[in-house]
Amino acid sequence: MTAEIISIGTELLLGHIINTNTAFLSQKLAEAGIDVYHTSVVGDNPKRLVESLKQALARADIIITTGGLGPTVDDITIETIAKFFGRKLVRNKMVVKCLRDYFKLRGTKILSATMRQAYTPEGVKCIRNNVGTAPGLLIDHNKKLVVCLPGPPRELNPMFENAILPRLRKMSKAAWVIKSRTIKISGGAESQVNKAVKKLLELKPPTTVGIYAKLGHVELRIMTKAKNEKLAQAAIDRIEKKVRAKLGGYIFGADDETLEGAVAGLLAGKKMTIAAAESCTGGLLSDRLTNISGSSRYFVMGLVAYSNSVKENVLGVSKYTLRDHGAVSEEVALEMAKRIRSLGGTDIGIGITGIAGPKGGTKKKPVGLVYIALVLPRKKVVKEFRFKGSRDEIKFLSTQVALDLIRKNI
Amino acid sequence: MTAEIISIGTELLLGHIINTNTAFLSQKLAEAGIDVYHTSVVGDNPKRLVESLKQALARADIIITTGGLGPTVDDITIETIAKFFGRKLVRNKMVVKCLRDYFKLRGTKILSATMRQAYTPEGVKCIRNNVGTAPGLLIDHNKKLVVCLPGPPRELNPMFENAILPRLRKMSKAAWVIKSRTIKISGGAESQVNKAVKKLLELKPPTTVGIYAKLGHVELRIMTKAKNEKLAQAAIDRIEKKVRAKLGGYIFGADDETLEGAVAGLLAGKKMTIAAAESCTGGLLSDRLTNISGSSRYFVMGLVAYSNSVKENVLGVSKYTLRDHGAVSEEVALEMAKRIRSLGGTDIGIGITGIAGPKGGTKKKPVGLVYIALVLPRKKVVKEFRFKGSRDEIKFLSTQVALDLIRKNI
Repeated sequence: MTAEIISIGTELLLGHIINTNTAFLSQKLAEAGIDVYHTSVVGDNPKRLVESLKQALARADIIITTGGLGPTVDDITIETIAKFFGRKLVRNKMVVKCLRDYFKLRGTKILSATMRQAYTPEGVKCIRNNVGTAPGLLIDHNKKLVVCLPGPPRELNPMFENAILPRLRKMSKAAWVIKSRTIKISGGAESQVNKAVKKLLELKPPTTVGIYAKLGHVELRIMTKAKNEKLAQAAIDRIEKKVRAKLGGYIFGADDETLEGAVAGLLAGKKMTIAAAESCTGGLLSDRLTNISGSSRYFVMGLVAYSNSVKENVLGVSKYTLRDHGAVSEEVALEMAKRIRSLGGTDIGIGITGIAGPKGGTKKKPVGLVYIALVLPRKKVVKEFRFKGSRDEIKFLSTQVALDLIRKNI
Repeated sequence: MTAEIISIGTELLLGHIINTNTAFLSQKLAEAGIDVYHTSVVGDNPKRLVESLKQALARADIIITTGGLGPTVDDITIETIAKFFGRKLVRNKMVVKCLRDYFKLRGTKILSATMRQAYTPEGVKCIRNNVGTAPGLLIDHNKKLVVCLPGPPRELNPMFENAILPRLRKMSKAAWVIKSRTIKISGGAESQVNKAVKKLLELKPPTTVGIYAKLGHVELRIMTKAKNEKLAQAAIDRIEKKVRAKLGGYIFGADDETLEGAVAGLLAGKKMTIAAAESCTGGLLSDRLTNISGSSRYFVMGLVAYSNSVKENVLGVSKYTLRDHGAVSEEVALEMAKRIRSLGGTDIGIGITGIAGPKGGTKKKPVGLVYIALVLPRKKVVKEFRFKGSRDEIKFLSTQVALDLIRKNI
């Protein structure tokens, strides 16, 4: 069974909105075992919408449209659909009631334009919108199903998941399900990753592995198509085990897990505390460490020592170290880590100093040069990095390797 | 002149990636006066790509494809295009040189798979990729132009803007241009904004105004279609003047400008320095203030005083204030601002304390309660806020109002 998505809206064709609905629907359809081979976008134009509908009906079993259900004159989906399928627009009592409830709940008057939404093509099934005013539509036509959904994601997502997807699952009686799992791997290890999983990357369907380089990390996506949930999970688990056997220590998480989340878990688990002294990253490391709920269990303090005088007078880095080695040096990074550890009274101190650019680089100390030092009760590590990228990227990459350094050393 | 965009990639049809390229390209094409009536997505499937190409060539003057130019077997764009236009694949010297330069710069060996990218359809123009390895392609065919761009946005965006767009502008000799301008307005003023610009929101084309609520700010988008750049600009300027007359002080920027950028400009212009003491925002304010290149001119230090002991012993907040009012209080925010100002020796000190959640709230001090204090040479301000949202959102909203407080008070 195949589905096709048509997104309707001139604002999409003007690039004012990014089409997230198509990604959301595609993912849900894939998981339900329904193939999507085409998606398209048309403007608020009846003629072109009709063309797209014809094309989609010739190719797919299920057509899902998004957008154009609102109360303004730009919203042409309902009228176009009614005309296309030769149905009259009739007042739908359920929708009238929904609209009345909606406005009553908000204590505002119903606008006459809004009541236009109560007129829907004869003989279609209307789907209640629990978040907004536009109902969804379900139209059966020559063994094909056309589903019209509202454009705003906060209206579309629950309507699709609760009212449409269960129906599609039943219809499709899909002979298979798709499942995927994303393994997240520390950056700077692309070549080892490639080498380690070379054979897996050549796997042929139904189970495949893809590799994706992200900013500061690498993702391996295992994907499988199987007869049922259980078999799919087993196929994924089998490959994941192989990946973990080869890349163990490089892996920091899976699916929605983040590097800061992994570090937070480790610190909390080991009941260790941390303090961070940052220069070029400007507070981003502290920010990321405190993005995790409950971070006060392990995060004690952060100091953004931007000027040399703050490094010296507040943090306590020796003025001789600063003078002899410069603020961007291994020596200063190490003193920053030691001093913040002592200031915060923590188990771990981390120091970052570098040049985020785009200005401020020299031949000897170019933009992207970053030193990171980690001091633990019985261990210290200092590393030099040379990053490429924009100011934002260099800041982010620095915190990424800093977090990974913590992860690996505790 | 019309253009059509075909995005190629099974990962798009599976919803693993959100299609941001289409929005980017659509926006740039609209600005150049080139109409986009359709965009579509197909998987890594030669047959379906050929169908889409045929359809697009029948409808539009310019076809832009994105993705599928990489070195793996999934990347089918080049071979499919070559076959479709009946051209042989030949080794392109320019691309070979680019690939060699790319890998030399990174000090790594060229993989044989990568060299596959040097084979491009005979007689096409290759466009240098300054960020990645896949070159872009330009194919003239029966007065139509086919442009193939790499999928990753950081490769596609500069290639399109620098090498493709100027060419399209020349080709199109568009009878009109579309211009837009986004006016950015501080959050918390939605009702005033709505009231102030009510009449403008009812404007009919060619010049229209839309309102969009973003996280922590509001955007007004003025859009116009006119015969030329100058007329379009005049129409925009006329409306912008009206908006500014009504909303003056609430406006912090336009288009790509950010709130932190506006604050940075003001601080640098007035030669004022700042230090930040943060609790619930965990370093995000310092991070945002240092995202601006040259921030060392005004940003001296940041302290993330997460624990009470750091607030007391490092920052110097009185233990009595902490005991009597609690860490989340106007009094502590004010002392944090005063103390960080004195520690950093800066003109301005800012203190933020609150509860980011999702845990840690009480009936009296719920999640989202945040106090922000600003201390200047001859002025001090303390404000209470009650935000709703996730932990991330509360952190962000707190820094948003903090930046706005700085903007309004210096």
